[in-house]
Amino acid sequence: MLSLEMIYDARRVLKDVARLTPLYQAPKIGENVYIKAENLQLTGSFKLRGACYKISTLTPEEKAKGVIACSAGNHAQGVALSATRGGIKSIVCMPAGAPISKVEATKNYGAEVVLVPGVYDDAYAMAVKLTEEHGYTFAHPFNDEKVIAGQGTIGLEILEQLEDVDQVVVPIGGGGLISGVAYAIKSIKPSCKVIGVQAAGAASMYVSRKNGEPTELSSVATIADGIAVKKPGDITFAICEKYVDDIVTVKDDEIASAILSLMENQKTVAEGAGASPVAAVMFGKVDTKDKKTVCVVSGGNIDVNMLSRIITKGLTKSGRISEITTKVLDKPGQLINLLQVISDTGANIISVNHEREDKKSDVASCVVTMVLETRDIHHVEEIENSLVSKGYELLNS
Amino acid sequence: MLSLEMIYDARRVLKDVARLTPLYQAPKIGENVYIKAENLQLTGSFKLRGACYKISTLTPEEKAKGVIACSAGNHAQGVALSATRGGIKSIVCMPAGAPISKVEATKNYGAEVVLVPGVYDDAYAMAVKLTEEHGYTFAHPFNDEKVIAGQGTIGLEILEQLEDVDQVVVPIGGGGLISGVAYAIKSIKPSCKVIGVQAAGAASMYVSRKNGEPTELSSVATIADGIAVKKPGDITFAICEKYVDDIVTVKDDEIASAILSLMENQKTVAEGAGASPVAAVMFGKVDTKDKKTVCVVSGGNIDVNMLSRIITKGLTKSGRISEITTKVLDKPGQLINLLQVISDTGANIISVNHEREDKKSDVASCVVTMVLETRDIHHVEEIENSLVSKGYELLNS
Repeated sequence: MLSLEMIYDARRVLKDVARLTPLYQAPKIGENVYIKAENLQLTGSFKLRGACYKISTLTPEEKAKGVIACSAGNHAQGVALSATRGGIKSIVCMPAGAPISKVEATKNYGAEVVLVPGVYDDAYAMAVKLTEEHGYTFAHPFNDEKVIAGQGTIGLEILEQLEDVDQVVVPIGGGGLISGVAYAIKSIKPSCKVIGVQAAGAASMYVSRKNGEPTELSSVATIADGIAVKKPGDITFAICEKYVDDIVTVKDDEIASAILSLMENQKTVAEGAGASPVAAVMFGKVDTKDKKTVCVVSGGNIDVNMLSRIITKGLTKSGRISEITTKVLDKPGQLINLLQVISDTGANIISVNHEREDKKSDVASCVVTMVLETRDIHHVEEIENSLVSKGYELLNS
Repeated sequence: MLSLEMIYDARRVLKDVARLTPLYQAPKIGENVYIKAENLQLTGSFKLRGACYKISTLTPEEKAKGVIACSAGNHAQGVALSATRGGIKSIVCMPAGAPISKVEATKNYGAEVVLVPGVYDDAYAMAVKLTEEHGYTFAHPFNDEKVIAGQGTIGLEILEQLEDVDQVVVPIGGGGLISGVAYAIKSIKPSCKVIGVQAAGAASMYVSRKNGEPTELSSVATIADGIAVKKPGDITFAICEKYVDDIVTVKDDEIASAILSLMENQKTVAEGAGASPVAAVMFGKVDTKDKKTVCVVSGGNIDVNMLSRIITKGLTKSGRISEITTKVLDKPGQLINLLQVISDTGANIISVNHEREDKKSDVASCVVTMVLETRDIHHVEEIENSLVSKGYELLNS
């Protein structure tokens, strides 16, 4: 049974393996908002804590046989590093289509990776098969009290790093992280609220709570792959029912905005799951007025290509990059005139594409597409109005 | 005169304004490597420290008149926030072409921004003119002992956060940061080495040291805009001569690699200047064998568009994204055959462009360009060899 003693025991075990991650104020996200930067944890996510404590509690016989996990993500790396640190063999089953970077990272932490053709369920079936054949211990990613106790050490740290904390906002996938954090916090400081955040496209705990029992979603879809879980565990569900005050959901574009804001304003890289508490605060799902609020940024393992896409999309959405297409006559000096109009509005030109043979243009004119650095949506409108008033036709969409 | 007492006094002043930034181990950069994450400082850079201490030492008359600075970067934001916190008026002159994001950030910290047509020198001339007209105090970005003392507080923190530090690697632009850090460290722990890093395209302190006197470069060019300084100050030059053990230089592509590594492996956003000490370690300019080495990541104010470009370029350079162009016959099933060859090599396909009417293709064939996620340069070679052995012609460049 989960207990505060078990969580303190996990902290003792983790002392030499996991990092005490910083907690700091994030005034640009909100006046009373703090970040618990668990993305700076070794392996880039909190998963190390639970995996490490779980493995430490195995018997010598179990340790001799090794551990197995099924994951293409943070749990895989947590199990791999924990096992390697403990001198234990680890096997990780992954669907064959897993990103190469995740496969390599898991191998680098010392695990043997088994790539299984098919999807997650196929990899899971293989892990079960290998467990039966070889007597490995199966390391569940969340529905395990030892794992939950390991994640709970984050709760202890928060209470020590910010004694007068009023509420903690925590991502929920299977529920392991929030179960540990909520148990620790409510046991020590019951007045502190614990709010869970789920991706709207994978809100299994949210739905389960409404239904009063663990409920399986038919499908999940979110950029926050770390919390894309179809069904919470029975153990985590029960703990959340008892200790979690509320669960809210955030949409993918809100998560993307939070990732961008964390990069720009907090200089920190968060994955979708990790940014979801910040998204909840930024978009008013959690009230932070007069409440010292800690967002647990649970991990930072996001594909850098995805980051690149989020940057471009985020800047476009907020009007800080905009694309304007118009026409000019095909004779000397016309492009200069156009650029002068843009320059007068205070926008910076990032790129210009001046094309003679576009299908949109008639014989005597050229199509010009400009990518501009702008202040905000209003600035973009101002530029468009200025162009129209000077007789330019806007061809955007 | 700069003294250890002055640096301690700066710490007292900064206690309620600046953040005590975390120092943590970065094993993926190097075995003995630590990061002093000054990019997590308020305003996103160490500049706040020097500006804040400088402003605190003004007389009531000076405070009443206000301060002025000339900067389109971190110094601007440091001065703006420090002045606002002290209830003092601040004016910042910037060249008119400064990035909109920097202008907005400086305004948001409470400064009045004067955009001056022309380049930096024009903005500087305007700042001098306004200083004379209005009696403002001019806040120099580096050649000022109070400013240096403020930056020196980072040295005190490093010695407390990692008592057995063996060497500290610090970026150098004008030399304010390293002067303060070196003075503090050598005064308290003379055995600790202090190494300076400059961008190869803006190595004014490096050249000055060779020449034995502050030397002005005719031009500077580097992605590390925070340390693109043509000439060090006389005060900072003299301190560096006395307290800095060595100065090394790093190239822009090394800095870009360091920025990418900090994002991917340390989950932290550094600007070019901030990443330069990490670049020096990654590319063997500083020996870290058996030496506990702290890299001062001095700031994180990098344009996110630049980050996006660095990501793409970095992944391509290391062979983790690659583009392959080849031809297939213009009949059914040919593209499938090609994709099967790619799939068999274990590469993931990011995008495929299958074009019939390209100039490169003859009438009976199509040009296919594929962007692939690959493991490394060797993996790319393996794929290319596999294609050639199956009769595909490689059309890349």
